[in-house]
Amino acid sequence: MTRPPHDRLRDAVLALDIGGTKLAAGVVRADGEVLSFVTCPTDVADGPQASLARLFDLGKHALDQAGVDPGDAPARLAGCGIGCGGPLDASRGVLLCPPHLPGWVDVPITRLAESTYGLPAVLDNDGTAGAAGEWRFGAGRGTRHLVYLTVSTGIGGGFVVDGRTYRGAAGNGGEPGHITVRSDGRPCRGCGRAGCLEAYASGTSLSELAREAVARGEATSLPHDATAVDVAREARAGDRLAVRLWDQTTGLLGEGVTSVVNLYEPEIVVLGGGVTRAGEQLLAPVRDAVARLAMGPAARAVRVVRAMNGDRAGVLGAAAIAFERRADAPRVPDARAPG
Amino acid sequence: MTRPPHDRLRDAVLALDIGGTKLAAGVVRADGEVLSFVTCPTDVADGPQASLARLFDLGKHALDQAGVDPGDAPARLAGCGIGCGGPLDASRGVLLCPPHLPGWVDVPITRLAESTYGLPAVLDNDGTAGAAGEWRFGAGRGTRHLVYLTVSTGIGGGFVVDGRTYRGAAGNGGEPGHITVRSDGRPCRGCGRAGCLEAYASGTSLSELAREAVARGEATSLPHDATAVDVAREARAGDRLAVRLWDQTTGLLGEGVTSVVNLYEPEIVVLGGGVTRAGEQLLAPVRDAVARLAMGPAARAVRVVRAMNGDRAGVLGAAAIAFERRADAPRVPDARAPG
Repeated sequence: MTRPPHDRLRDAVLALDIGGTKLAAGVVRADGEVLSFVTCPTDVADGPQASLARLFDLGKHALDQAGVDPGDAPARLAGCGIGCGGPLDASRGVLLCPPHLPGWVDVPITRLAESTYGLPAVLDNDGTAGAAGEWRFGAGRGTRHLVYLTVSTGIGGGFVVDGRTYRGAAGNGGEPGHITVRSDGRPCRGCGRAGCLEAYASGTSLSELAREAVARGEATSLPHDATAVDVAREARAGDRLAVRLWDQTTGLLGEGVTSVVNLYEPEIVVLGGGVTRAGEQLLAPVRDAVARLAMGPAARAVRVVRAMNGDRAGVLGAAAIAFERRADAPRVPDARAPG
Repeated sequence: MTRPPHDRLRDAVLALDIGGTKLAAGVVRADGEVLSFVTCPTDVADGPQASLARLFDLGKHALDQAGVDPGDAPARLAGCGIGCGGPLDASRGVLLCPPHLPGWVDVPITRLAESTYGLPAVLDNDGTAGAAGEWRFGAGRGTRHLVYLTVSTGIGGGFVVDGRTYRGAAGNGGEPGHITVRSDGRPCRGCGRAGCLEAYASGTSLSELAREAVARGEATSLPHDATAVDVAREARAGDRLAVRLWDQTTGLLGEGVTSVVNLYEPEIVVLGGGVTRAGEQLLAPVRDAVARLAMGPAARAVRVVRAMNGDRAGVLGAAAIAFERRADAPRVPDARAPG
């Protein structure tokens, strides 16, 4: 039986991911198939007007690539999901003042997206969306309780609790980068207080720790402008400073993940973000730490795995929240009308 | 209109709280009125058989005091809730091996309670039950997202997420005492790893830190066998060591609560347990820490308040989970039959 071509899209959404350096858009089906995927630089220096215009053009480009005339989107797609760093107001669909997007103050992003595409739009923190994306389409499929951490320039993440994405009281819930691991430790660039996990185990922190050690004159094969990738590579090659920094980073990441596991008792911890490209070099010590340190047999048995959505995590996350919110929406005729 | 006397009980439950030093039982109505409340020592040295017999007798005593002949309990009460320290299997109603109850291994506590009283019984971690009790009957009434911490000999607690008690994947979820605050810090008696919140901010830890300082010969008005109560009192009187220890304890408690707030973004943090008898001497610095350190405006605005259920926290918590599980149970005739 041949299906008409629009069938392929009937259960698809437009997904937009707003990062500080990169914008991404795609059309994603309910089964996770990515029908189109496009990116462009955010160029925050141009200000919010220019970046928003680029974002919405990128979305139209994604529609085009998926074979949808943007004018037909309301008839052919189910909705639009948007992921962005917080703080934001998820229920009103407003970006409040995300630090990675200077000048973006009180941007009513879902209303703008709805008027651009004629699709009902939803907004979530990108960590929350990432958790939803791994749960619905990635490494967490089939679980009920999931913790997602993204280890990148910062440390973000989100939670799925009993099969539902967790948002907290105001929609910013789940900041696993901002739990203390070393009281009175290094100041955290993300939140200002001392000793956060992000201040030790993010890609930025690892790079800073390496550069500080090189500047102090420690014997090492690391360059003066070492990145997290350099530290991972030189640690594999046996450089003593790199090994020490890598072990400290993965050790503290393991302690932080253990704290989160003790609080949530999830079935699975999914680790994503650029630093996890190191694969088992990162995952194995974190897994070992949880198995050794967590409370009780259930917590110690938690699976620690690598995220599967990779470079498409933002778009798949935004799509996941669009599907979830649509399933939650009241079944009345006007529930999907643009606001 | 005069109601028949049994009306007063139609929506009441029997609640049992199993602590390491004390057993408690009571009959509690759906509106939180405690119709009876009785306690006795656990006497763990006598072994589980003797303690269990004492527990079930205590429950009968609570029924008697509320005017219920134990033989009439199945007709007159709605169910039985049981709170106990973990690890336990909440779904099967089995105590696995709680460290505060030596010898209690794989005790099928809900089945035993059901055959004793003829009431459907449910089991939860006492921290989880305590959170449910403060949410339903205490300081958290009317909220949707609550964090409960009990600061006592150890640090326990639980969570209410979007109006539902959070249990985690295996029913032990929510161990806020076992998040790291000082990596490589003091060993934690509760879980064995280093630097947990419980190793710094519990009543036991505060007492230990004080005794260690006295033994080192530090100038202080504290006795060699100082308790947390002594430290609180002498800190109010201006003793320098006591002030330093109190400030450290409340500071680290504030950091730990901030970590939990950053992860959950609750509306309210409820602090209970013996150490909170110090009132604002404890609450004010914790509240200040959260307001100063938490991520984003919503997290910084969280209310930090003292628990209201006091000495009845265990019984009110066990009652709360009985009411919650009963509301969740499928509405079929045999759903409440003893298993």
